[in-house]
Amino acid sequence: MSNIVILRLGHRPERDARVTTHVGLTARALGGSGMLLTADDRSVAESIDRVARAWGGDFWVREGVSYRSEIRQWKASGGVVVHLTMYGINLPDCIDKIRSEFRAHGIMTIIGAEKVPGDIYGLADYNVAVGNQPHSEIAALALFLDRLQDGKSLTHEFKGGELEIIPEEHGKSVVRKG
Amino acid sequence: MSNIVILRLGHRPERDARVTTHVGLTARALGGSGMLLTADDRSVAESIDRVARAWGGDFWVREGVSYRSEIRQWKASGGVVVHLTMYGINLPDCIDKIRSEFRAHGIMTIIGAEKVPGDIYGLADYNVAVGNQPHSEIAALALFLDRLQDGKSLTHEFKGGELEIIPEEHGKSVVRKG
Repeated sequence: MSNIVILRLGHRPERDARVTTHVGLTARALGGSGMLLTADDRSVAESIDRVARAWGGDFWVREGVSYRSEIRQWKASGGVVVHLTMYGINLPDCIDKIRSEFRAHGIMTIIGAEKVPGDIYGLADYNVAVGNQPHSEIAALALFLDRLQDGKSLTHEFKGGELEIIPEEHGKSVVRKG
Repeated sequence: MSNIVILRLGHRPERDARVTTHVGLTARALGGSGMLLTADDRSVAESIDRVARAWGGDFWVREGVSYRSEIRQWKASGGVVVHLTMYGINLPDCIDKIRSEFRAHGIMTIIGAEKVPGDIYGLADYNVAVGNQPHSEIAALALFLDRLQDGKSLTHEFKGGELEIIPEEHGKSVVRKG
């Protein structure tokens, strides 16, 4: 599978802790490789690491990064940069093109919080709206990753970890692996 | 279009305000009709109403409902009840069946917060996992609504309202309607 990295901008510790944790867990569950956080919030990274240890896979989080240098490096290595924003081109109108580039080089997906630095719109190869309506960066990321992987985002395998769910029609069943 | 109603359970005012607002805005943006809140949190309803007034459509929020009586009424009128939970049957394995029932009768989608009352698993017609991994109820709702509507969740029209986005490749453009 190609490399999918999330770059989370503008995270404010305290206020955004839960939303950024949801962003990271969604990225992991839907096949992302890791998340870069421009803020320096160890607590978010720890929450996500805890889930990853328990449920498997090798999703990583790195905090305190510079977004300009991360984007520059990503582009230099041939990767595509997509910024999710309600002002961009609607996903159904651009996903086929992005999917073909992603397969070749991997993708960095930028997810802003309330305010996004103005230069992001120019630095991104694509500014993509997941519907041109205000809603949620978590929902936007989920739909983007799903369409990017052609609907295969829900069937990834997570190797290792301690816990596994046995799907149930009307109950809960969690087993300890190994 | 058939009727899609969200039932949000276990919302704790303060702690869950942002996540529940994201749930409501996601439901609206992806073609939901309205959201029922078991909690009595007028501030969440007001945030969502404000977005709906500005951006159009007729999404509604009703707070302080009893989940048992809402589910009972929904089922009595022939509607399907789906509970999104990581313990359920994975979405790709059940969506075709749910989609055909939804078209006939409309759907109530139950979204829990941290803890869900045990009787929900029995009251729901379907307990559906959006991937059997822990992530986010907002991401789960987005993917569920998208697959339910066969990928057409991002092209709904929102009549009325004051604002509209003109999609841009590298910028922001919002126009005032009318």
